[in-house]
Amino acid sequence: MKGPQEPRSGSSCAACKLLKRRCTPTCQFAPYFRSDEPNKFAKVHKVFGASNVSKILNEVPEEQREDAVSSLVYEADVRLMDPVYGCIGAIASLQKKMVELQHDLIIARARLAYYVDQTVLFSDDGVNMCPVTDMVEDFSGQDFLSFHQFSQFPFP
Amino acid sequence: MKGPQEPRSGSSCAACKLLKRRCTPTCQFAPYFRSDEPNKFAKVHKVFGASNVSKILNEVPEEQREDAVSSLVYEADVRLMDPVYGCIGAIASLQKKMVELQHDLIIARARLAYYVDQTVLFSDDGVNMCPVTDMVEDFSGQDFLSFHQFSQFPFP
Repeated sequence: MKGPQEPRSGSSCAACKLLKRRCTPTCQFAPYFRSDEPNKFAKVHKVFGASNVSKILNEVPEEQREDAVSSLVYEADVRLMDPVYGCIGAIASLQKKMVELQHDLIIARARLAYYVDQTVLFSDDGVNMCPVTDMVEDFSGQDFLSFHQFSQFPFP
Repeated sequence: MKGPQEPRSGSSCAACKLLKRRCTPTCQFAPYFRSDEPNKFAKVHKVFGASNVSKILNEVPEEQREDAVSSLVYEADVRLMDPVYGCIGAIASLQKKMVELQHDLIIARARLAYYVDQTVLFSDDGVNMCPVTDMVEDFSGQDFLSFHQFSQFPFP
């Protein structure tokens, strides 16, 4: 007869179901891999392996394990869709978009500075019609993230 | 006596060295994990496991395996540094910067449009002094990547 320490197989978490092992109340995976979401564990198992997922969870504080599992599931999902680049593909794509945005912003701000001058020249009293000191600040770009290490990967 | 099919242990690749197995000329890992870069394999082994790395390499065309290994090594490296978020942390950070850039660009373009109108009003002949039709185009933002799935992760 099964007691509370021996749950029926029907209540096994998705991890124990896939690994074909008994799910105990102290199962490390159970809080994060519910039995009705079998794909969630299947993905991380396929990419990272159950043992590595277990090790990662062990080194993360309990209150951050839910986030760790979410990021592992997402990372695994992306790697399964794109075995060559995985998340690095998404990062390279974001980087490319950021470079385009930086370029557009430099152009917009340079032209804005030109028009601010023109407006002052053509206004009756020479008074700037709109305060713009906050928007034509020096745009050196040093605030932006630079993932130079990804330059080795062609953009997917 | 060892022939070309049985290389000395001194010529084992980093993977075979770590896995303590004989490195053969057909070793799948040897082209990507040189013996003088032991950390490269150690990292991917720790995060993905040798077996999963092998599976990923098998499903990738040979000409893309170097890229696949590079992205796996990078992903493993980031996960070891940040066990909770891994690459998702970098993606969330890039996303945040992108949102800031989009916001700055919208403001710069809106103000630019205002100044273009002012310049036309104040010019002697009402002629636009600088062609700007290419820079005040509608900014709907639909071209930008949207990784809504990351909204569940607080920015690290």
